[in-house]
Amino acid sequence: MRFLHTADWHIGKKLHGFDLAAEQWNAYEQIRQIAIDEHVDAVVIAGDLYDRAIPNEKSVTLLDDMLIDLNLKHHLPLLAISGNHDSATRLRTGSTWFKATDFYLNTKLSQALTPVEFDDTQFFLLPYFEPFEARQYFQDDQIKTVQAAMVQLVAAMRAQFDPNKKHVLVAHFFAAGSTHVDSETQIMVGGLNAIPVSDLADFDYVALGHLHGKDALHAERVRYSGSPLKFSVSEANQQKGVWIVDTDPFKLTFKPLRPQRDVRILKGAFGDLTDPAFYQQQATDDYLAVQLTDQRVIPNVMQELRAIYPHIIELDRVDGPVTTDTNATIVDPHLDPLELMTQFFEQTTDTPLTARQQKWAQAALTAATKED
Amino acid sequence: MRFLHTADWHIGKKLHGFDLAAEQWNAYEQIRQIAIDEHVDAVVIAGDLYDRAIPNEKSVTLLDDMLIDLNLKHHLPLLAISGNHDSATRLRTGSTWFKATDFYLNTKLSQALTPVEFDDTQFFLLPYFEPFEARQYFQDDQIKTVQAAMVQLVAAMRAQFDPNKKHVLVAHFFAAGSTHVDSETQIMVGGLNAIPVSDLADFDYVALGHLHGKDALHAERVRYSGSPLKFSVSEANQQKGVWIVDTDPFKLTFKPLRPQRDVRILKGAFGDLTDPAFYQQQATDDYLAVQLTDQRVIPNVMQELRAIYPHIIELDRVDGPVTTDTNATIVDPHLDPLELMTQFFEQTTDTPLTARQQKWAQAALTAATKED
Repeated sequence: MRFLHTADWHIGKKLHGFDLAAEQWNAYEQIRQIAIDEHVDAVVIAGDLYDRAIPNEKSVTLLDDMLIDLNLKHHLPLLAISGNHDSATRLRTGSTWFKATDFYLNTKLSQALTPVEFDDTQFFLLPYFEPFEARQYFQDDQIKTVQAAMVQLVAAMRAQFDPNKKHVLVAHFFAAGSTHVDSETQIMVGGLNAIPVSDLADFDYVALGHLHGKDALHAERVRYSGSPLKFSVSEANQQKGVWIVDTDPFKLTFKPLRPQRDVRILKGAFGDLTDPAFYQQQATDDYLAVQLTDQRVIPNVMQELRAIYPHIIELDRVDGPVTTDTNATIVDPHLDPLELMTQFFEQTTDTPLTARQQKWAQAALTAATKED
Repeated sequence: MRFLHTADWHIGKKLHGFDLAAEQWNAYEQIRQIAIDEHVDAVVIAGDLYDRAIPNEKSVTLLDDMLIDLNLKHHLPLLAISGNHDSATRLRTGSTWFKATDFYLNTKLSQALTPVEFDDTQFFLLPYFEPFEARQYFQDDQIKTVQAAMVQLVAAMRAQFDPNKKHVLVAHFFAAGSTHVDSETQIMVGGLNAIPVSDLADFDYVALGHLHGKDALHAERVRYSGSPLKFSVSEANQQKGVWIVDTDPFKLTFKPLRPQRDVRILKGAFGDLTDPAFYQQQATDDYLAVQLTDQRVIPNVMQELRAIYPHIIELDRVDGPVTTDTNATIVDPHLDPLELMTQFFEQTTDTPLTARQQKWAQAALTAATKED
């Protein structure tokens, strides 16, 4: 069979305050189109459908619309699990009805041991879990880690293997060899201990969620799909997309997604970034982490930049901290107040006070002194 | 056809801090049994399935279990709407899949105008709504009240009437003639303006939710079912239950529910209520609003009563405020401190200070005076 592997949709996620709903819907539509064009038999979503345990109403509607569109309108079978960002209990609402249309949404550890069979393949849908759930399930106090739990879970799954079929594990955890990036919140650092890829060798393919880059792990048949969107500046250089997996013969194809509004790092001097000759060549609407190479103070720097680049998500000075112009004389605190004000104005704006401004400043200082 | 009419389940509701989950499940099981015994063709739930817009995970599981049991396990068709306590958006999750098993859960105003047909009956399932939703739907700025909206809604429903069928409206609002009680939170006092029963005369039956007593309205064919449980002391004297409705010929039968733990008012003197001869004849485990007829101060009164009646939800003095014993001399503020303390102790505990207590009191007073 052929299926599409995606994960980490994180519906409801905000990027430094910016709502991503429109981009999330756009990415979803691309995924649906790939599923249709590639004639897949099913779509696998490996956890973190929502960004949080209690998504807001808008997010509830958005995900519901996607799942209805995919499963009920386009009749695509769905194989999904809850991730660490989802509330398993809330996500499960209604899932008992979903099976009638080949939408399998597993949110309980125990469900992982009843494979879902499609064509030539047995899918083991293992939701995100914490070690205590495995302890309870196996009645084994020795299970202290996810790794220990996985050893028993894999053995129990293997006992269900139909030798005439292929075996695919869908899971949401941290597999050994992968690297963490910023946007995966570390809720359970201890619980997310790494699963060695060698422990997963019994499967023909392991469709993982949790890490957001497809290259987080280098193993032929144990793969993260990554998220459909870049959710952090640390993901700026990742190519987002989905895997198309053929089970027999095994074949893996990556299908990239085009971001509607990219997340990029924009590095340069303030003067260059605000030069029309430069920015007119830029996708100024992207989510930008601006790295300024200037060291001098730039008045209203964020306001000036946002007038050109409305979606700045980070602003950093990459060549050391902001200082007053290093060539300027240090302001002498013994100067009289008017002189002090004049120097400060000049140094921060690179413009001298006009005669009129000088007069206003003098009047203000006189008034202030009188009030003493 | 024959259907069961219930409403206002308020899953997740607490009664003065007491969790009602066990009682709610018990009441649910009684409702299911009535539905089975009466061979109903469908169960109508007229809104407020949850007690709040964001129910906790335990409540989500509880309601999910009930609906799965009723619709998927016992194959009972369900006709339900969202009430003012529900989040329409959250309640709607998965509802698109429910229809396949004859579970119709309407949460949008527009859905009310597509009747659900069962046997000889058209059901119009109108969720709780606010006037602005009707304004938007009808594109009519003149709709300022629920009543104004209902006039247009009923006209639009009537346009859908199949003259060969019966017509049932399921709705969640305040109908004229009904009386309010404590446990219906007044979120939208202006929006919940009354709908005159005469505006509903086109229907063969109107199955209402919102008010918690079946006798809140006196109209033959416009009925509140009331809640399955007593949710407030003001409901102590209500008989809870469900309606069994036959459409042709029309017949209405009330089926009572037995409370697992009743809500009752218990009135009497402290001495009587704490007398084994009395309380051994009582269902001491009930949720009790205790009305004490005593006027004297009773030390540790709540603790003493709770030792016998663990589920006290209210404690009042019904024969005027607590006073010191009216036969006692008023304490003279000119007395010396030790004498004052002695009199206060005697009056509030009906016991004199022992010699040892007197000595301790004297020592404490001496120490306190020294520190001055």
